[in-house]
Amino acid sequence: MIIIIKQDYEKEQLDSLTKWIKSQGVKIDASKGEKNLILGLVGDTSKIDIDLIRSLDIVENVKRIQEPYKLANRKFHPQDTIVDVSGHKFGGNSFQLIAGPCSVESEEQIIGIAKAVKAAGANILRGGAFKPRTSPYAFQGLKAEGLKLLLKAKEETGMPICTELMAEKYIDLFQDVDIIQIGARNMQNFDLLKAVGKLNKPILLKRGLANTIQEWLMSAEYIMSEGNENVILCERGIRTFEPATRNTLDLSAIPLVKEMTHLPIIVDPSHASGIARLVEPMSLASVGAGSDGLIIEVHNDPPHALCDGAQSLRPEQFEEVVKKVDVMLPLVGKVRN
Amino acid sequence: MIIIIKQDYEKEQLDSLTKWIKSQGVKIDASKGEKNLILGLVGDTSKIDIDLIRSLDIVENVKRIQEPYKLANRKFHPQDTIVDVSGHKFGGNSFQLIAGPCSVESEEQIIGIAKAVKAAGANILRGGAFKPRTSPYAFQGLKAEGLKLLLKAKEETGMPICTELMAEKYIDLFQDVDIIQIGARNMQNFDLLKAVGKLNKPILLKRGLANTIQEWLMSAEYIMSEGNENVILCERGIRTFEPATRNTLDLSAIPLVKEMTHLPIIVDPSHASGIARLVEPMSLASVGAGSDGLIIEVHNDPPHALCDGAQSLRPEQFEEVVKKVDVMLPLVGKVRN
Amino acid sequence: MIIIIKQDYEKEQLDSLTKWIKSQGVKIDASKGEKNLILGLVGDTSKIDIDLIRSLDIVENVKRIQEPYKLANRKFHPQDTIVDVSGHKFGGNSFQLIAGPCSVESEEQIIGIAKAVKAAGANILRGGAFKPRTSPYAFQGLKAEGLKLLLKAKEETGMPICTELMAEKYIDLFQDVDIIQIGARNMQNFDLLKAVGKLNKPILLKRGLANTIQEWLMSAEYIMSEGNENVILCERGIRTFEPATRNTLDLSAIPLVKEMTHLPIIVDPSHASGIARLVEPMSLASVGAGSDGLIIEVHNDPPHALCDGAQSLRPEQFEEVVKKVDVMLPLVGKVRN
Amino acid sequence: MIIIIKQDYEKEQLDSLTKWIKSQGVKIDASKGEKNLILGLVGDTSKIDIDLIRSLDIVENVKRIQEPYKLANRKFHPQDTIVDVSGHKFGGNSFQLIAGPCSVESEEQIIGIAKAVKAAGANILRGGAFKPRTSPYAFQGLKAEGLKLLLKAKEETGMPICTELMAEKYIDLFQDVDIIQIGARNMQNFDLLKAVGKLNKPILLKRGLANTIQEWLMSAEYIMSEGNENVILCERGIRTFEPATRNTLDLSAIPLVKEMTHLPIIVDPSHASGIARLVEPMSLASVGAGSDGLIIEVHNDPPHALCDGAQSLRPEQFEEVVKKVDVMLPLVGKVRN
Repeated sequence: MIIIIKQDYEKEQLDSLTKWIKSQGVKIDASKGEKNLILGLVGDTSKIDIDLIRSLDIVENVKRIQEPYKLANRKFHPQDTIVDVSGHKFGGNSFQLIAGPCSVESEEQIIGIAKAVKAAGANILRGGAFKPRTSPYAFQGLKAEGLKLLLKAKEETGMPICTELMAEKYIDLFQDVDIIQIGARNMQNFDLLKAVGKLNKPILLKRGLANTIQEWLMSAEYIMSEGNENVILCERGIRTFEPATRNTLDLSAIPLVKEMTHLPIIVDPSHASGIARLVEPMSLASVGAGSDGLIIEVHNDPPHALCDGAQSLRPEQFEEVVKKVDVMLPLVGKVRN
Repeated sequence: MIIIIKQDYEKEQLDSLTKWIKSQGVKIDASKGEKNLILGLVGDTSKIDIDLIRSLDIVENVKRIQEPYKLANRKFHPQDTIVDVSGHKFGGNSFQLIAGPCSVESEEQIIGIAKAVKAAGANILRGGAFKPRTSPYAFQGLKAEGLKLLLKAKEETGMPICTELMAEKYIDLFQDVDIIQIGARNMQNFDLLKAVGKLNKPILLKRGLANTIQEWLMSAEYIMSEGNENVILCERGIRTFEPATRNTLDLSAIPLVKEMTHLPIIVDPSHASGIARLVEPMSLASVGAGSDGLIIEVHNDPPHALCDGAQSLRPEQFEEVVKKVDVMLPLVGKVRN
Repeated sequence: MIIIIKQDYEKEQLDSLTKWIKSQGVKIDASKGEKNLILGLVGDTSKIDIDLIRSLDIVENVKRIQEPYKLANRKFHPQDTIVDVSGHKFGGNSFQLIAGPCSVESEEQIIGIAKAVKAAGANILRGGAFKPRTSPYAFQGLKAEGLKLLLKAKEETGMPICTELMAEKYIDLFQDVDIIQIGARNMQNFDLLKAVGKLNKPILLKRGLANTIQEWLMSAEYIMSEGNENVILCERGIRTFEPATRNTLDLSAIPLVKEMTHLPIIVDPSHASGIARLVEPMSLASVGAGSDGLIIEVHNDPPHALCDGAQSLRPEQFEEVVKKVDVMLPLVGKVRN
Repeated sequence: MIIIIKQDYEKEQLDSLTKWIKSQGVKIDASKGEKNLILGLVGDTSKIDIDLIRSLDIVENVKRIQEPYKLANRKFHPQDTIVDVSGHKFGGNSFQLIAGPCSVESEEQIIGIAKAVKAAGANILRGGAFKPRTSPYAFQGLKAEGLKLLLKAKEETGMPICTELMAEKYIDLFQDVDIIQIGARNMQNFDLLKAVGKLNKPILLKRGLANTIQEWLMSAEYIMSEGNENVILCERGIRTFEPATRNTLDLSAIPLVKEMTHLPIIVDPSHASGIARLVEPMSLASVGAGSDGLIIEVHNDPPHALCDGAQSLRPEQFEEVVKKVDVMLPLVGKVRN
């Protein structure tokens, strides 16, 4: 960490600051720049709050040199982490397809889609039981009943399941869920992150709509610091000024994240745009960018599932995407397994 | 709601859509535009998910005409809501000052600051017991112990207290808290919103970093739809591309929100910039924009409270702000009470 | 266009508005919504300024139904526009590679790189002669001298050239340039757009850093409305809150733009991130998203071209990208020609 | 400037970099951090392009310590610059009001408004002759004819005039204009900045929609480096994700800019929101934030000036704003003169 001191600082304030920094177990290497005194902090600065330093009267600016995350940092763990979900691997040269409906609606629906996406090549089934909705008046999912139906589909098809946990109080219901999803709106729900950090289960951590890559890795760090290192990151679009898509899929994040962390990262091309016909091109783009997998919404019966299946692909369209993805994988050195 | 149908739609798909819309109790007024068929939806469209309509194959675009919020909507409730906190009023021509430290640290500290801000003119005491922090390694607050100290300060000074609730599981500890704050990162933690919606207590709802004004009002609607209409909105900065401030305080939101809703709205000028010397100008700017109050961080002993008091004002600086605010209030038709 | 009138409008103001709208040659279809009067405008509304309507006292909101662009609109021109550059086609099932250095530095340098990128598979040479730079103290390019060197490289290698025009006053120097680039910062320099609209020459129109897709198409419309329909769009990243990359490449824009317009669109994967090692993954991602081509920075001698070649690939790395792109093209139904 | 070198750098690359840095006349102070080698650059680094350093293979990250602007930097020029416009001062403890219509339409209109705003307290007249418009089909202003009308209004009322220059080729027409405005879309039109830098005339430099404060000061630096130090900055809103206002007025920028530069800064509250009824609250907010003035759109005859006067205030509303501003000025230590 580099602290740039204002030109007209008072010695007393500087002494107070340096004393406090040293009390945090960090050494100081001071040097005189052209106009300003510059303090270089040497040692473990991960516990020093950069915002608080910045807010001090005598500080002109402060820059972090070392990343504030450690367990998620590739510098301290150079090889890829492989997250294993019943034999299906995330990370390394593996590529995974998770597919299923936005919401679980009925036994017939979820088992039907599960069979269809399995036939098309998906290894893991997704489906929403608890649904975060902007409006209190919108359908919030079948909740516990939806979870039961998902577990039936797992039993019927042998597919591991992935579904979203919205609050700690429901955690006991998720014992047989294979991947617990933390949604974008909960990416900085720190109590929830700590709760899933105490489990021994893969966590799919979606990026928050307005969160930087560094904040995302800090949220992964929250989970890992409680003991659970099975974190799979999921890019799903960020909020920008562009109104033509609901969110802007940030695919440059994929190769960058792979440099910063050893954790696997996948892409959700369905939610970013909210437009079904963009799923195929954005799926291929994600593979090109180096993603470790895709999570795609698929539904079976559009006319009857108007409001929950609408933004998803039909199984035959999904199959088309899978075929093209499979042609691309050798190009990026990946295999489905 | 206006739905613009694609030029090359299939009749069967259109029939399916119109049938579904009618099943939601909404009438359709279809008209032929220059190039497209346009459906005007007449009736209560608040339960219709605009994103799902947009994602349909035959839909080119969809625009909302009526707001999706009802209880928070000024159209249905023209007069200002007044939220009363032990006689201190939010809304109407009232103006409130909430002040106190970022974190509660000790009995001496919180009581000292409480007395100082009361003397300077604040009516309500703020202080963090549970602290949301980006890093799992940063200090997370004194938690339950911090709450006890706040309650002592309330007893000692008679000031109502305002503090943040981070998770539903702590809700029982907050029985004697006068205003429960929902932080920016929890603005769309829907389970938490429903939980505080069941209380009969003022809720300070901070705007999420990347949330539109409409989403903010939808979160207020979540609380109100559970029965609690005592919602105070708090603007605290949004995330933009500008790196010079931590967040960009969106003061245009103040007069706009006042048109859209009858709920009171205050401003937190301390957190947006993270820079103490911006608190005074941004406080005066907030009053000019028509805010119903301010929530300001104040600390007492900078050298000893380096890391939690740093971005706040000292009591004498806060007093200076209060004096200037008091001069401005008649200009915007407001009084402190 | 749909205009939502406020509930408490004055009849006189409404009459004034409707009279004015009719004077613009547009018909009005008024209907009564649940709470508001709604005016539907039927006819050519492309000349009506939506911002001005929105600002009227009696208007609550206004929504555009028809796009404000006509010449660039796929609705009025369903088949792809093919822009031909000396036999190399942009649009349709063609895919083009433009490559070359950030800045032209010397005859040896530009001819060396031209030969290298041609050998690696590029069809068109790029190179900066006039360089837009944030700082007045930074190197601004060799200007007219740089253009001459580019033309020499064209003569030597037979490659068409693409280079940026920064101001109308230099336009005569660009007579033998094959593609004139309008940079992101000039996307709304309307006088410059009109000037190149009067030429009979392909224009590469980069997207502005903070411009919506619709504004981008309106800028294409400026060029086309002066008579020049040879517009090639170029996505190069938009400005967001994420600090890890210089800009965020918006690849979802590719399939969307292809629906909205018949113009070809290519991607510049070098400038968005400013990080050379992201060029390969983002090039493959662009192909997956359906881009009609790539414009890539390539330099030849990194140690001696420290400051202008640094963010580019070396020729052998570029060749590697070309090989992978060529494997992908059949998947997206494209050929290089 | 601080350069953080990657852990696995090659010695040859580092030598090449350090040699090049030294050739730029800058000294290097190298130190070993916990994990990385860190180079501190001492001397004038304003000519070193930070993006290019960042893009080098061996560089992990780079941070600027000294600002890249010199002439605009308060560190090198601590006292406020006062820009004098025929005796009306911008900067220091002065406060200025510029007012007038969006577009000049007729002699009667502009002289009428000029007299009205002068009576209400404005010292300087604004009016658009050349209008930048997103659509090529929208009214682009009366151009040269509009300028003549403005000059007539100046003659008639004695008010200095402020109007926008859109391209260098029109510069000769602007000889009798008192303040030349550079619009937001031209903030990085570097050739235009250099052209007005050669004049001896106040320049009103609007902030670009997506430009950081630092880029804005770099554009001021462009003008100043050509010899013209009479630059007045103007905040007019930035582009964010919020759709309720056209742009988000960034008032925190006011006190920040005043710390970073000695140049005066004013606010345009009319354009940011595009909503006339927000002009009064945002004007008062601007004064509170410490602005050196306001530029406000005022029109005289709404029913007949529907499309250009719509987003502006009527003279009597403007007068109301002036009265409230005058009450506030002593609070922020300012006077109108």
